[in-house]
Amino acid sequence: MAEQHSDLEKAINTLVTKFHAAAANKGPTLQTKEFKDLLSSQLPNLVKTGGSEQGLGKMMKQMGVSDGEGITFKHFWGLIQSLATTQHDLISKKVSKSSCVLL
Amino acid sequence: MAEQHSDLEKAINTLVTKFHAAAANKGPTLQTKEFKDLLSSQLPNLVKTGGSEQGLGKMMKQMGVSDGEGITFKHFWGLIQSLATTQHDLISKKVSKSSCVLL
Repeated sequence: MAEQHSDLEKAINTLVTKFHAAAANKGPTLQTKEFKDLLSSQLPNLVKTGGSEQGLGKMMKQMGVSDGEGITFKHFWGLIQSLATTQHDLISKKVSKSSCVLL
Repeated sequence: MAEQHSDLEKAINTLVTKFHAAAANKGPTLQTKEFKDLLSSQLPNLVKTGGSEQGLGKMMKQMGVSDGEGITFKHFWGLIQSLATTQHDLISKKVSKSSCVLL
């Protein structure tokens, strides 16, 4: 790419390409095994349930994935959204907490 | 941070911190001017309407921002989601197109 890309643009690109690269056949959905591998390699700190089958099944249900269905980018995005929102809430709380200390 | 972070975790972190850093008072919402600056510095290639007031107003309406209201992380996330989904669709199409050529 000839264009210069910002950190934010690179971050969006990373989210898209990591999902896409996880599908062995480069298809639109991930198999459960592919999704599990993506979680353990790419979200080891943010998603702790990736190791157990039970935890994984529960999480996939929360993401709206039906039994035997592949994981779409939309499902994956729902997970990323919940992780990002949690992180944003944590940062915001930290800041307001430290403001209270300053007051 | 002592933990090792993956590219995907760093990408989520970038999305959260770039939004947070754009608020001058580190508050939960961005003013229109702060949002405009964020677009031009961080999304120059993906969002082309950032320069014109009219284009910006239209986009903010699409994001669900009411007149005079600050931009929340949720609003911002809606924009990121639409950019990521577009990019994902582009990649997927590219791949299926090249598969057709191979067939």
